[in-house]
Amino acid sequence: MALVNANYLKLKGSYLFSEIGRRVRAYQEANPEAHVIRLGIGDVTRPLPPAVIEAMHRAVDEMGAAESFRGYGPERGYAFLAEAIAAHDFAPRGINLTADEIFVSDGAKSDTANIQELFAAESVVALTDPVYPVYVDSNVMAGRAGTLGEDGRYDRLVYLPSTAENNFRPPLPESHVDLIYLCYPNNPTGAVATRAMLEEWVGYAQREKAVILYDAAYEAYIRDDGIPHSIYEIPGAREVAIEFRSFSKTAGFTGTRCAFTVVPKRCMAYTAAGEPQPLHSRWNRRHTTKFNGVAYPIQRAAAAIYTLEGQAQIKAINDGYLANAALIRKTMQGMGFAVTGGINSPYIWVEVGQDSWEFFDKLLHQAQVVTTPGAGFGRCGEGFIRISAFNGRAQVEEAMERIAAL
Amino acid sequence: MALVNANYLKLKGSYLFSEIGRRVRAYQEANPEAHVIRLGIGDVTRPLPPAVIEAMHRAVDEMGAAESFRGYGPERGYAFLAEAIAAHDFAPRGINLTADEIFVSDGAKSDTANIQELFAAESVVALTDPVYPVYVDSNVMAGRAGTLGEDGRYDRLVYLPSTAENNFRPPLPESHVDLIYLCYPNNPTGAVATRAMLEEWVGYAQREKAVILYDAAYEAYIRDDGIPHSIYEIPGAREVAIEFRSFSKTAGFTGTRCAFTVVPKRCMAYTAAGEPQPLHSRWNRRHTTKFNGVAYPIQRAAAAIYTLEGQAQIKAINDGYLANAALIRKTMQGMGFAVTGGINSPYIWVEVGQDSWEFFDKLLHQAQVVTTPGAGFGRCGEGFIRISAFNGRAQVEEAMERIAAL
Repeated sequence: MALVNANYLKLKGSYLFSEIGRRVRAYQEANPEAHVIRLGIGDVTRPLPPAVIEAMHRAVDEMGAAESFRGYGPERGYAFLAEAIAAHDFAPRGINLTADEIFVSDGAKSDTANIQELFAAESVVALTDPVYPVYVDSNVMAGRAGTLGEDGRYDRLVYLPSTAENNFRPPLPESHVDLIYLCYPNNPTGAVATRAMLEEWVGYAQREKAVILYDAAYEAYIRDDGIPHSIYEIPGAREVAIEFRSFSKTAGFTGTRCAFTVVPKRCMAYTAAGEPQPLHSRWNRRHTTKFNGVAYPIQRAAAAIYTLEGQAQIKAINDGYLANAALIRKTMQGMGFAVTGGINSPYIWVEVGQDSWEFFDKLLHQAQVVTTPGAGFGRCGEGFIRISAFNGRAQVEEAMERIAAL
Repeated sequence: MALVNANYLKLKGSYLFSEIGRRVRAYQEANPEAHVIRLGIGDVTRPLPPAVIEAMHRAVDEMGAAESFRGYGPERGYAFLAEAIAAHDFAPRGINLTADEIFVSDGAKSDTANIQELFAAESVVALTDPVYPVYVDSNVMAGRAGTLGEDGRYDRLVYLPSTAENNFRPPLPESHVDLIYLCYPNNPTGAVATRAMLEEWVGYAQREKAVILYDAAYEAYIRDDGIPHSIYEIPGAREVAIEFRSFSKTAGFTGTRCAFTVVPKRCMAYTAAGEPQPLHSRWNRRHTTKFNGVAYPIQRAAAAIYTLEGQAQIKAINDGYLANAALIRKTMQGMGFAVTGGINSPYIWVEVGQDSWEFFDKLLHQAQVVTTPGAGFGRCGEGFIRISAFNGRAQVEEAMERIAAL
C-alpha cells in the first residue's frame, strides 16, 4: 500500500494567496461590474522594459535557426548571466563571488522552498512572525515543523516575533537554532535591515554554527546608502549565509520566471561528528539532479537588465513603484493608522486594529481594493494588512481615494 | 550546529551526464582540432519550428505592452495550454482528462525528481535496471534508498532487471512494492511497452495498492498503432498511475523548458490506517507551494505545437530523428552487435560485450563520437552503450562511418 507523506496532513488549510484569489473571484462573480484594484499578492503590473524585450526576441530567433539553436544549457545557468550578476550586483559592493557560486533558477519561491532539503530532518528552524508562508510550508512538508497547535503555530519551529514594539526587527533566538530564514527588505512588513542588525545575526550564526537563509528578493527597492543590499556586505557572512535574489520584483519577471541563489563555497553545514560539509557542492548536486536550467531566452532577458539601458529602464520602473509606496504610506498615515515599510520597500504594513481577514473583506467589499491580511503571514500579523505598491499610478491613486473615503 | 542531510552522503560520486561532460571537455581540451559528434546526452539539435518561434515572439511582445503584460500566472499552468494538451494528446485516444488534472512545469526531470515527496519515507520503491538516474538519486536524497552496497545497488530499492533475456521488459516484482517507476518508450534501452504488459502492471498496482510513476517523455516517437501512447489507455490506470510528459523531446524544448504531469483526481495513496488520499490535491499543494509556474512566452510556445502547422512541423523533425535512429540501428547491427530500440524510440541500446565506460572512451578517443555508457544507468546496463539519434543527418552519417571504420 503506497503511503502518503503524512507531513502533508499537517499543513494548514490552504496557501494564503490561493485563498485570497478564491475570495476575489467569488466577489467578482457576485459583482461583475465592480472594478477591483489589486494591491494584494505583490505582483508587478508594468510591462517588461525594452532592453529585456529586445534581448528575448533576439534569443528566440537564435532558437529558430540551426546554427544558433541551444538545447540543454548548464543546469545552474549560463556563464554569461552568472558573470553579469557577479559583476553588477556584488563586485561594486566589494563582494567578490565566482560565477559558479551563483545558481540561476526559475524563481526564489522554488529556491527558498527547496533549500531546506540540504539539511537534516531534525534541524531546528527559526523564522520571523509574520513571514513568507513558503518557508513554513516547505519545512512542514519535510517534517521539520512538528505539529500544528491550536494557536496556529507548529511546535518544532522557533518563531521570532516581528512587532511594533521591536520596530519589526525580531530579537536573536533565546536558544540554539540551526537554520534561520531572514528576509530584508521584509515581506510582509516592509522593514529593512541595518548593518548592525545583520552583524548580530552573522555573529549568532558563527557562534552557533547555524546557517542564515537570506531572502533579498526586494533588494532593488533599497535607496538609502546605509542599508546593506546583500548579507555578504557583513564580514564573515560567506561562511554562514546563503542569499536568494530574484528578477521578479527587480525587473518585472513575475510572469517570466528567473532568479538566482548564492551559495558561497566557504559556507558550511556539519556532519553529526562535526565535520564541515560545503553546502555549495550539495546545492550543486541537488540543482543538477532535480532541475534542468532556465530557458535560454529567459536567461538572455535577465542578462539584459545589466546593460546600461537595462539598468536605467528597471530603475525607472521601480522608482514608479516606490512613488506608489510613498503615496500609500502617506494616505494610510493620514487616516491615523500606524504604518511601517513603504520606504526602501514596495510593501506597506498597516496596523488596522481589528481582525485582519475582516479588514481585508471590508476593503474588498467596500472599496474594491485587494490587500493581504496580515494573519496570513503568522500570528503576529493579526491586526495588520499588507498593501503592495505594485500597480499603475492611476490605480493606486484611485484605490487610495476609495479607501480614504470609507 | 546545522547538520547536513546525511542522505546526500549516500549518493554515488557524480551524476552520469556531468561525468560524460567532464570526459568530453577533457578530451576536447587535449585535442582542440577534433570534431566531436555528440550522440550521448540525448539533447535535441534541430531548431524550434516556425509555429513555435512565431508564438513565442507574439507572447514576448505581449509582455512588453502594458495592456497585455502578464505577471504571475496560475502555478499549474495556463488553461489555454492544459486544455490544448487534454484535447490533442489524450481525448483522441479516449482518455478524458479535465484541464486541472494536468500540471504544467519546467521539465519532466523536475517532476520525476519531485514526485517522490508525496509519499512516505518508508515507501518501497521499484525501478528498472538500467534506469534514468534521476529516479534513483531523488529517492536517495529523500532517504528512501537505504545504503549503497559494493555491488553499486542501494539495499532498500527493488531493482527490476531489464535484459536481453526478457526482451528488456522486466518482470513484476516478486514482493510487494509501493512505488514503481516505468518509462516507455524506454530511456535508455529504447524498448517499448505493449498493451498486455501495461495491463499486467496496472493489475499489479491495483492488487498491491501501489502507484505507477509512468514517464512517457518519448511518446512522440511511437509510430506503430498497437503501442500505447499513454498508460491511461489501460482500463483502471487512472486510479493507480501518474504520467509524465515533456515538450523537450516532443518539440525540441530541451533548452526551452516545458513539460507536464497528469495526476488524475481518482489516483490514490493511503494513510497508515488505509484511508485513501487523493494524490491530485497533494501534488497541487506541492506545486503551488514550491513552484510559481512556467514563463508565459514558453507556455504560448508549447501551445503552438497543437496547431495544424505546429503538429506537422514537429512530426517532420521527429521523423528526421527516427530516420537517424534507423541508420544507427542498421549500422550497429551490420557490425554484428545485438541491438534494441531505435524503432518507435530515439535511443539505440547496443550490447558491446565489454566494459561500457571503456567502450565509451574508445568511441570518444578513436571515433570522436560521444555515446552514453550503459553502466551509468545501472548494473544491468554494464556491457551496453546507449546511442542517441538526436543530431543532424550529416553528423549521424559521419559518426556511423567513423564507427564502422574502427
